[in-house]
Amino acid sequence: MPISETWLLPDGVADVLPEQAQVIETLRRDALDFLASRGYQLVYTPFIEYIESLSSLSESNQDLDLATFKVIDQLSGRLLGVRADMTPQVARIDAHVHPVEGVARYCYAGTVLHTKPQGFNTTRSPLQLGAELFGSDSIDADVEMVDVMLSLIEKAGLAAGTHLDLGHVGLFRSLVKHAGLTKAVESHLSDLYQRKALPELAEFTQELKFGSDFYALGRYSSDLDALQTHLSAEVLADEAFKHAFDVLKTTQVEIQSRWPNLHIGIDVVELRSYHYHTGLMYAVYAPNRAAPLAQGGRYDGIGQHFGRARPATGFSCDLYALSAGQFTDLNVVVAPKGTAADLLEAISNARIQGFSVIQLLGNDSLNSVPHATHQLVNVAGEWKVEKI
Amino acid sequence: MPISETWLLPDGVADVLPEQAQVIETLRRDALDFLASRGYQLVYTPFIEYIESLSSLSESNQDLDLATFKVIDQLSGRLLGVRADMTPQVARIDAHVHPVEGVARYCYAGTVLHTKPQGFNTTRSPLQLGAELFGSDSIDADVEMVDVMLSLIEKAGLAAGTHLDLGHVGLFRSLVKHAGLTKAVESHLSDLYQRKALPELAEFTQELKFGSDFYALGRYSSDLDALQTHLSAEVLADEAFKHAFDVLKTTQVEIQSRWPNLHIGIDVVELRSYHYHTGLMYAVYAPNRAAPLAQGGRYDGIGQHFGRARPATGFSCDLYALSAGQFTDLNVVVAPKGTAADLLEAISNARIQGFSVIQLLGNDSLNSVPHATHQLVNVAGEWKVEKI
Repeated sequence: MPISETWLLPDGVADVLPEQAQVIETLRRDALDFLASRGYQLVYTPFIEYIESLSSLSESNQDLDLATFKVIDQLSGRLLGVRADMTPQVARIDAHVHPVEGVARYCYAGTVLHTKPQGFNTTRSPLQLGAELFGSDSIDADVEMVDVMLSLIEKAGLAAGTHLDLGHVGLFRSLVKHAGLTKAVESHLSDLYQRKALPELAEFTQELKFGSDFYALGRYSSDLDALQTHLSAEVLADEAFKHAFDVLKTTQVEIQSRWPNLHIGIDVVELRSYHYHTGLMYAVYAPNRAAPLAQGGRYDGIGQHFGRARPATGFSCDLYALSAGQFTDLNVVVAPKGTAADLLEAISNARIQGFSVIQLLGNDSLNSVPHATHQLVNVAGEWKVEKI
Repeated sequence: MPISETWLLPDGVADVLPEQAQVIETLRRDALDFLASRGYQLVYTPFIEYIESLSSLSESNQDLDLATFKVIDQLSGRLLGVRADMTPQVARIDAHVHPVEGVARYCYAGTVLHTKPQGFNTTRSPLQLGAELFGSDSIDADVEMVDVMLSLIEKAGLAAGTHLDLGHVGLFRSLVKHAGLTKAVESHLSDLYQRKALPELAEFTQELKFGSDFYALGRYSSDLDALQTHLSAEVLADEAFKHAFDVLKTTQVEIQSRWPNLHIGIDVVELRSYHYHTGLMYAVYAPNRAAPLAQGGRYDGIGQHFGRARPATGFSCDLYALSAGQFTDLNVVVAPKGTAADLLEAISNARIQGFSVIQLLGNDSLNSVPHATHQLVNVAGEWKVEKI
């Protein structure tokens, strides 16, 4: 690499310069303060861990494993992973490090690294912020988490035009179990749902046991009432199916009553991270953006990997995505050289007022601070901050 | 690794749980706000970079290279380093990404990773916070930086009993050049200084050109006035030597006048990171702690590696070390279930007052929140926050 190119950064990695860093920093603080006000306690998780600890989700989620940078620990000779997702780390804390009896709520914010960008034109080092709730399997917990996620988006000033997507892996999963499908059939059905291939689905389900139910699931995936009228009585009576249906319906109703103007979309065959989640899934989208602003879901039993399985639900987002395009104005005051008491007092006062105050060095003039917006000037014996 | 041990963390790596995370978070915010008030602009630097970019200091500093975790970039096939020090990254920003004409001040805070602990019983993932000043070679810049470092320590509540160490690599370096010593002799002398081996030094310098000056440097390393009276006129007249001496003396005087109660120690043969620094070096120590609370120095020309050499001086510290042992009390209010308007308003008000408020879920009782300190109770029709 020639010296002239040593300043180049790898793809999907960027510096954050002052005008934007200030915006992200403010957003980070506001978000954490908001989560604290809702009872979510801050934790800092390590940047590296033994790979076995990070893989609590990846047993069923090869994507996470592929996204994780690995290095050898020179102290133990073992394999370490650089965190690619903080959720498994917080689950480890809940299971072992801080094993609260009862309900535990945690929040976190930190950089995670991905070996490759997770989407088109996305960063490899998102600033992940999230909240997790452990120890409650009640629908209230799901509703709270969705409400907290929506409130956070509102705090970030991005509520206008957003819509919420709700799904639940339990409908498809319990129907598959009820019908006793083979893995191959399950996988083919899942593919048809993802592709929204209704004609193919109609044909494929014709000969299938509970075929009309599987078809209805795809055909009425976004309308719970219509779905209900098209399902067979036997499926509607299946306990697991009924529970999933109730959770989805109750969450929709409760969230709509709290957020009357919010557009809520339902998709009972949205099976994104199907192998990872165990219940309700939620994502909030902004207009004209493909990737969700924030997303999460229920993943009961994640702590099993650490010896303590608990109900769990949570969401996360990338703070860079929440702040995209915003910049902040900086107020920089330049003060003359000197150590006279009145000058030092004026500088101290301006700092207390929230100004960033720089005193000139050596023989420098005002030009040495090209980003200055104000200067401290002596007008008839009094120091004043004036615009430049 | 048996599942029962998946929660174990590698040596030198730790979770930060809520009671302490809140302290660190507050300290981080206060420190960054303080640095902003002094004109230091916040930047976020990437967690990974091409190894060539991270090594601007390590050409002459093999320690940094050894401390850096390396991974292969799956996008480019090239070697990436996980940042072990943010200073070279900020130098890269100054040189190329944000090339301000004039003086630039930056601050940063973030986790860095070390392959091995850098000292006895130290972390491998410090939360590095620092400030850097580019574009001024005046003594004022050195004085400002030391003053900012001391003020930061004071902000953190650790000023009591601290002492400041000042050094300058230029005295020894210019004397070596003036005397025309070989590398071997320079290295041997450096070793004698580090070991404070005065009898050996006396013997070794007896036959050496400018031997009495080299001996005086070691003998009177902590007393600039005594040193001056024991140096030869020729050495005192050497321009580089004179400049280094002036910088050290002026800084000592100016800092002492701003911090009259501070104990300032001088060590002209303290050659820690001798190959990396180019001028004044400074470190602040707390009583009964071996490692400095914060340290830094001048490293002019670091930007050369990125095609733009500028004067530079800066310091950094580990926020974990600055907050050691402090914990914060959490105020957690538990509110009953329900969506009645007066209850929701009371919850909202308590949150505005700074309380962390949790609403009970499902059929949970107060016991489900064992860390609760308060509860929201209805007393004669009015909601009140009461201690538990």
